[in-house]
Amino acid sequence: MLVDGKHYKTIWLDDNDPSIVRVIDQRWLPHRFEIAELQSIEDVAQAISEMIVRGAGLIGATAGYGMYLAVLEALQSDNFEKYLAASAAKLIATRPTAVNLRWAVDRQIDTISSTEISEKASIALKMAQQIAIEDEEACRNIGLHGLEIIKKIAEDKPGRTINILTHCNAGWLAFVDFGSAMAPIYAAAREGIDLHVWVDETRPRNQGAQLTAWELVQQGIAHSVVADNTGGQLMQNGEVDLVITGADRVTRSGDVANKIGTYLKALAAVDNRVPFYVAFPSSTIDWSIQNGLVEISLEERDPDEVKYVQGLLNDSIEQVLITPVDSQARNIGFDITPARLITGLITEKGICEASEPGLKGQFPNEH
Amino acid sequence: MLVDGKHYKTIWLDDNDPSIVRVIDQRWLPHRFEIAELQSIEDVAQAISEMIVRGAGLIGATAGYGMYLAVLEALQSDNFEKYLAASAAKLIATRPTAVNLRWAVDRQIDTISSTEISEKASIALKMAQQIAIEDEEACRNIGLHGLEIIKKIAEDKPGRTINILTHCNAGWLAFVDFGSAMAPIYAAAREGIDLHVWVDETRPRNQGAQLTAWELVQQGIAHSVVADNTGGQLMQNGEVDLVITGADRVTRSGDVANKIGTYLKALAAVDNRVPFYVAFPSSTIDWSIQNGLVEISLEERDPDEVKYVQGLLNDSIEQVLITPVDSQARNIGFDITPARLITGLITEKGICEASEPGLKGQFPNEH
Repeated sequence: MLVDGKHYKTIWLDDNDPSIVRVIDQRWLPHRFEIAELQSIEDVAQAISEMIVRGAGLIGATAGYGMYLAVLEALQSDNFEKYLAASAAKLIATRPTAVNLRWAVDRQIDTISSTEISEKASIALKMAQQIAIEDEEACRNIGLHGLEIIKKIAEDKPGRTINILTHCNAGWLAFVDFGSAMAPIYAAAREGIDLHVWVDETRPRNQGAQLTAWELVQQGIAHSVVADNTGGQLMQNGEVDLVITGADRVTRSGDVANKIGTYLKALAAVDNRVPFYVAFPSSTIDWSIQNGLVEISLEERDPDEVKYVQGLLNDSIEQVLITPVDSQARNIGFDITPARLITGLITEKGICEASEPGLKGQFPNEH
Repeated sequence: MLVDGKHYKTIWLDDNDPSIVRVIDQRWLPHRFEIAELQSIEDVAQAISEMIVRGAGLIGATAGYGMYLAVLEALQSDNFEKYLAASAAKLIATRPTAVNLRWAVDRQIDTISSTEISEKASIALKMAQQIAIEDEEACRNIGLHGLEIIKKIAEDKPGRTINILTHCNAGWLAFVDFGSAMAPIYAAAREGIDLHVWVDETRPRNQGAQLTAWELVQQGIAHSVVADNTGGQLMQNGEVDLVITGADRVTRSGDVANKIGTYLKALAAVDNRVPFYVAFPSSTIDWSIQNGLVEISLEERDPDEVKYVQGLLNDSIEQVLITPVDSQARNIGFDITPARLITGLITEKGICEASEPGLKGQFPNEH
């Protein structure tokens, strides 16, 4: 997508040095656009845990490249297998809720272990690139399928701006390109549909206010940032035509783990008969689990992310304390939106019901 | 209540100069405890609109004292009646959703207009003090009635900490003393019940993180500040035994206008069978309206309250920008929680159903 009019992806291999992976450093957006270099498995683990990169698809793609860098290091080590296994474990531990992470690491392990030692580096690089390309393609297709939903709403409301609410950032910054929840919005904007996006700021880390809003500014799409508290009132007042969010993990029955607060918006959508869709590539589905509320462990992060807010002050990025020094805080990263609250799921294969039959209909070969 | 171990109320007349009203300046809490002086109707209007004072009861009490200052000024003016009417209109315009404001102003106008000119100042002062005392008494009684709810929960869960979630600040800072939603919590803490309070930070102005958390630190009650997104997950996870919020306006049928985001918590409470109570003195009831969703106009405030967050940086209180400079924002101050989502209402008279029969049972003389 565009940054100051120039095309970017969120992750790429350095043109000159194939041992350097470059990523957009998402910690300073929207105030500063910086590129980070990842040169080791340590760099990659840190980039994921410190959220230099974040978002379901991009975590997966970064882990894919991370395993390639791990192979380069393992080849220099005493024990290739042991080094690789330790690297895989290190990556998987960085973000416990993100299923794409484990999916990408497992895929690399399978590929690398079935290859001759002389081929391991080039095969791991190819797989990393493959994971990234598949992510991009899946998002492009999610955009095209989701576009149909927006088109139908626009046909039912001719001459009116279509208001779409989204939570957190499931835009191109959360993937390699295009995004999941945002892909249909970008596709609709390209079709000339008159759109306005309600951007939940998404405390505590404000991925909505910082990243989604920045994406929309860069693509020139009308939007308003709102406090996370606001969506219910907007729905009560008829100012939301559609909600689309992303997902960090989806169970085989269609329960969705996504950024904390998603569940509250789904409740409000049901209460006000607003369609509520969740968009994700199939790499986000965890076929091993059924009941999201019982089986998904939700990441708990540093309470200081609640107590401090980051923003721009006189050209400098600062963190201000918003609570009393002596107050405790709790920072749960995700919640579960049960399938019963979800109008439909948008994947690279199309749109389906949030249920096991719905998902199995799209992915008949999964067990 | 206590501030650094010393008893305070939120508003009082200066001991030496009866033309000066003193209030706690709530804009700098929790980082700085400052007292502001209000010496004119202009000061009072500004104190309310800039949220030096805020909260249903305290706005009413401040308006009561404001009308007393208006009488002092009107007595110096060419036209007493005209000056007083203009002062009343100025006060009422400051915060459109707060019903206590109009209620206090109307009460003063009735009293002042039926009094001899020589008595007007002393009568207006008495009425201002009366409004403040009634507010304090109502809150004390709300605390005692609400305590019964907490006691029952504590009896059902012996040996367990009782977790209570609250949104925004309906503590003593929002009234003259004690608070509405917080009064039962303070009463329960005095009884030695083992409590922990989940404090919604309450964006955009963070009254929870800044004011409720500060109150709880000062009273020594265990609490954790959470992002507004978090309450649904906590309820799904069985970590909330009770929700109590305040109200800015309550209709005769029990619909509640309160800080934006209250509605989302009520939806989650119903979905997880968590009791959801709203506490307020009867001055918050607007008997003239039935349907909150249709008839209450909701205040919309400066979008910069969404785009900027205030906090402490190196001993200085600063505002940091959290969105792109070019993003729009929308700042709706309140939402409506329909009576159907509310377990019960707590007023100075007791606990009742959120319905017209419920409220009329407590206030049979209202029409």
